[in-house]
Parts: sequence; structure tokens; C-alpha cells
Amino acid sequence: MHILITGAAGFIGKKLAARLARDCKIEGKPISKLTLFDIVEPEAPLSNGPEILTNAGDITETGIATRLVGDECGGVFHLAAIVSAGAEEDFDLGMAVNLDANRALLEACRALPNVPKYVFASSVASFGGYMPDVLDDATERTPQTSYGTQKSIGDLLVTDYTRKGFIQGCALRLPTVVVRPGKPNKAASTWASSIIREPLQGDEVICPVHDQQPMFVTSPATIVENMIKAWELPAEDWGMVPAITLPGLTLTVKEMLAALERVSNKDVVAKVKFVPDAHIQKICDGWPTHFETPRAERLGFSKDSDYESIIRGFMGNDMVQNN
Amino acid sequence: MHILITGAAGFIGKKLAARLARDCKIEGKPISKLTLFDIVEPEAPLSNGPEILTNAGDITETGIATRLVGDECGGVFHLAAIVSAGAEEDFDLGMAVNLDANRALLEACRALPNVPKYVFASSVASFGGYMPDVLDDATERTPQTSYGTQKSIGDLLVTDYTRKGFIQGCALRLPTVVVRPGKPNKAASTWASSIIREPLQGDEVICPVHDQQPMFVTSPATIVENMIKAWELPAEDWGMVPAITLPGLTLTVKEMLAALERVSNKDVVAKVKFVPDAHIQKICDGWPTHFETPRAERLGFSKDSDYESIIRGFMGNDMVQNN
Repeated sequence: MHILITGAAGFIGKKLAARLARDCKIEGKPISKLTLFDIVEPEAPLSNGPEILTNAGDITETGIATRLVGDECGGVFHLAAIVSAGAEEDFDLGMAVNLDANRALLEACRALPNVPKYVFASSVASFGGYMPDVLDDATERTPQTSYGTQKSIGDLLVTDYTRKGFIQGCALRLPTVVVRPGKPNKAASTWASSIIREPLQGDEVICPVHDQQPMFVTSPATIVENMIKAWELPAEDWGMVPAITLPGLTLTVKEMLAALERVSNKDVVAKVKFVPDAHIQKICDGWPTHFETPRAERLGFSKDSDYESIIRGFMGNDMVQNN
Repeated sequence: MHILITGAAGFIGKKLAARLARDCKIEGKPISKLTLFDIVEPEAPLSNGPEILTNAGDITETGIATRLVGDECGGVFHLAAIVSAGAEEDFDLGMAVNLDANRALLEACRALPNVPKYVFASSVASFGGYMPDVLDDATERTPQTSYGTQKSIGDLLVTDYTRKGFIQGCALRLPTVVVRPGKPNKAASTWASSIIREPLQGDEVICPVHDQQPMFVTSPATIVENMIKAWELPAEDWGMVPAITLPGLTLTVKEMLAALERVSNKDVVAKVKFVPDAHIQKICDGWPTHFETPRAERLGFSKDSDYESIIRGFMGNDMVQNN
């Protein structure tokens, strides 16, 4: 079976590709080929079997979805996206990547001879506006960003394409994934990784939000686990609405830094300086922070046990010592 | 001010056009021109002032949105749509009309020198799937039809274009509008009008659903009132989510026919024959039927007082005596 991963140079895409190349199978079926696509050429992971094709390109280009999917694709993990602050800055680019490219991929999948799987990385940024204190599986999506709007539209399209039998798809609304390795990105949430990553790597870092700011988070390992679970889940288990919020943990900045201190020391935590940024704070104020996810838990999706283990996962797998 | 109405040959579009041509103003501003667009040429209503342009065309044609909006349009009532059963039968046509044409109109509006109004006719078909017994302003939209999916996407786009300041828009999720004059259409709900219209006009009619089937309805007069109200409502009143379900009445078929008997007689009601249609019944089973609409009511949107007055409105304005 041939599998396509878009956004494969990204931090989650990379881990997912490495896992599939190592496992050589999904849902009990052998993986013959992995196509890894992104705007920059993704690294090829070590493979225990599958042929690895890496591919750089512009996902908004006409015809590219059809070329990538080919005519024997077994399914797609669609992770490529313009992140929140990026889609807010450049509305048209956000629409092109987050909406049109998703639709082009869905259409390419619909044209396949066999109904393919389709795992779409959506986001809790789909929520916003008038929200209850605790969001659950019945909360209305009234996003207050273009990114959230585009992800929410993705949920709807994936659900309808699945209902029509064009794909066997699902949309997973991801909590903020921490701790992201590498450099800060354009996501308004990037500080949630930076305040852990930079101090551990020996660098000072600015936290642009106040220390009572909560964030709904999950680890990269759990997300990879849940994406594979989503692919493997039988259609009948998904039922009428194959779009869910994945489980996560809610912590304030203060709680995150307390966990950081428990796995390191006071000197590490002292590298975090608070310099409020009204623009970032305002975006974060509009985000949902407390969730109940009974449906995902009933379906067997995983949840991190605590924040210390998320930080230890980063230290064991992704940390780079700078100083 | 120039106003564009799409779907202007339709039953609501026609009444809205007639009302604006009569009033000559909206939100206290004079209307200089009304462009009435549909797939068939709309009738020009009697005008007390505004120039009336009627226009037949295909709303999915490239460039048509820009041509229709022109460069001095004050706003759009976007009513054109492929209805529920139509969009289910022809997925691509539904996407082209209900999603792409809406987006093309939004883009044409965004290009205008002054921020235009944009009233989008959405639908309670946006709801479906796992629903509470009574839906309200916080109920998630998980539609189970392509029509509902496309209307729900419209709600999201209109909300985001408004938030970005590209338009001053709103999306009104319409209850089923009864009593529709003329012929049955492709909407799976068309029977709700037929079972009143045909008997009153002297014809027998088949009811394809059982007599306990509830339906959430409103009258054409109330919808026209509410569309104008929506245009006139200040942006600050709409707040963060300019997409609402309009108020309506919920009645079972049995209650509708009892009201019909009260405004006519037993012989009229006897013209309704029950011939179950499993396909139509299944679609209707998936529809939301009981709503609370506190937000719309707080904003001042109107609600019909009772079903008898809805029927009398049809008898006074739209009924044609066939036999």
C-alpha cells in the first residue's frame, strides 16, 4: 500500500513518517511506499521496508494533488497547513493552503479506484467566540481566526466526503502539540514550546503571555499514536461524525514551569522572562482551554499522563544542547 | 445604493425584491438600483423608484460574481442555492453553487471600495448527526447532507469575511419556509408546503412522511422581515458570531393538518393521502425539529404567532385556484 503524508517536513509529519517507515505496516497491511511531501524536501527516515519518496513542492499548485496521490494510493495523512498567525497575516495564502489544497486532495482521493483512508489534522482553533467554560463533543465551532475557520471547514468536508463514500476519512482536532523542537514558528501558540525548549537547551526565552494563561496540550508521541489509531479505526466506530477533538491536558504557564523545574532545576526556569505581547495575549484569550473529550476516549484515543512525561519525551528525543 | 439579490426568481427572492422595490430604502438609505439575478430571468416587481435590472445566468460561471456586484454595490442578499435533494443527487453541482459561487460573491464584495452588507440564506439543514432533543445557539453543526455541509461552510466563511472587515455580513439559518406557492421542488421538505397548498388549490396530494413527523417552519412574510432586519442590524449587535438560527414554529404533520382544517374544512384535509416514501422519511428523520433561538429573539428577529396565520397568509397572497 502507498501512503502519502503532506507536511512531512514538519515536526509531527517527520515523526509519523519515521514511525510508519519503521513499522512497515498499518491496520495489518504492508506499506510498500511512503510519499513524503512538503514545501521543503522532507528528510527520508530510516526504512525497514517501504520505498521512501521525498518531494518538495507547492501544495496550492494545480494538479499537484492528483500527481501526489497517483492512482493506487491507500490513503493520506494530510498535515500540511499555514499555521494560525500565518493564515491571519495572509488570508489568501491561508485559504489556498488550508482550504483549497485540502479540497484538491479530497478530490484526488475521490478519483481513486479504491476508497482511500484520509486522516486530516484539524485544530482546536476551530473553536472560539461564545464558548462554554468546558468544551465537549457537542460544542459549536465558531472560530475567531481564519485558520480556525479553514480547519473547521476541513472537518465538514472530510465528514461529507466520508458520508458520500468518496473516502474513509476523519478529522482530528489537535490540541497544541508540545514540546516542538527546532525554532519558533508563526503559530500564535509557539511560546508554549519555546518556554520549555529554550531553557532546557540553555537559552533565555521570552514568554509573551501571563503565567495564568492555560493551554490545552498533547505530546508528539501521543499525536502520532492517535493518528495511526484514527486510520485504523473501523468506519462503524466513527459513526455519523468522524470529526473529534483529541484528548489533552490543560495547564497554565505557571504549572508548565513548575513541571519544568521538577524535571530540571530553578536555574533552567529562571531563563524564562515575561514580556507581555498584547497581540499574542489577545489571540490566546480567544482560545478554548478546557475540554472534555469523552467520545475520543471511548473510541480508544490516547492521552498523556502528565506534563513531566511530555517534557521528558522532548529531552529524550528532540533536545539539542546549545550552550 | 445598489443591491444585488441572487435567487431572485425564487419564492423568497421574489417577495424580498417586491418589498425593497416598494419601500425604496433600507436602513434609512435610498435604493437606487436592484439587480435581480437567477438561473431563469426574474420578474421585475412594481417599483416605487429603484431601477430594476433582471438578469438570467449561471452563478457558477467564472467572473459572473464580479460582474453582478459591479463596483458600487451596497450589498447582497445571497439566496441562490441548489436545494437539499438536488445537492445530494449532484454533489459537484451542489459544491459549485452552494460553496464556490458563495465564495466568488464574497470575493467580489471584498474587492468593493466600501464594505458592503451581505445577508446569506443558510439553513437549519446545517444541523444533523448527534443532536440534543432541543437545539439552541450553542449546538454543534454536524450536517448529514451535502447541502447542510455547504450551508454550514457558508456560515463559517461569512463570519470570517465579516471578522476580517471584508464585508458586513451575516448568515441566517432559515427554518423550512411554508407555504411555498407554485410547484413542488427538489427539496426533501417540499411536502410541508404541498400538503397545505395542493388541497387549498383543490388538488389531491401525497404526504410521504408519517403524521407525527415534526417540522420547524416559518412564513415567507416573516423571513422577508427578518432578512431586512438582518441587513439593518448594527455590527456591534451581531458580536463575534453573525450566524444564527432564525425563530420558527415546530409542528407535526397532524398539527399542520388540524390548522388547515380550522381555516378551511374536512373536505380540503381529506385531499391529503399518506403514501410513505422511505427515502424522504429517512432524510426527514435526520433533521433537527425542535429549537430554542434566544439569541435571534434578543436581537429582535420576528416569529410567526401560529400556523393558522401562516396558512391565511398563503391564502391571501399566493394561492391559485385550480379546480
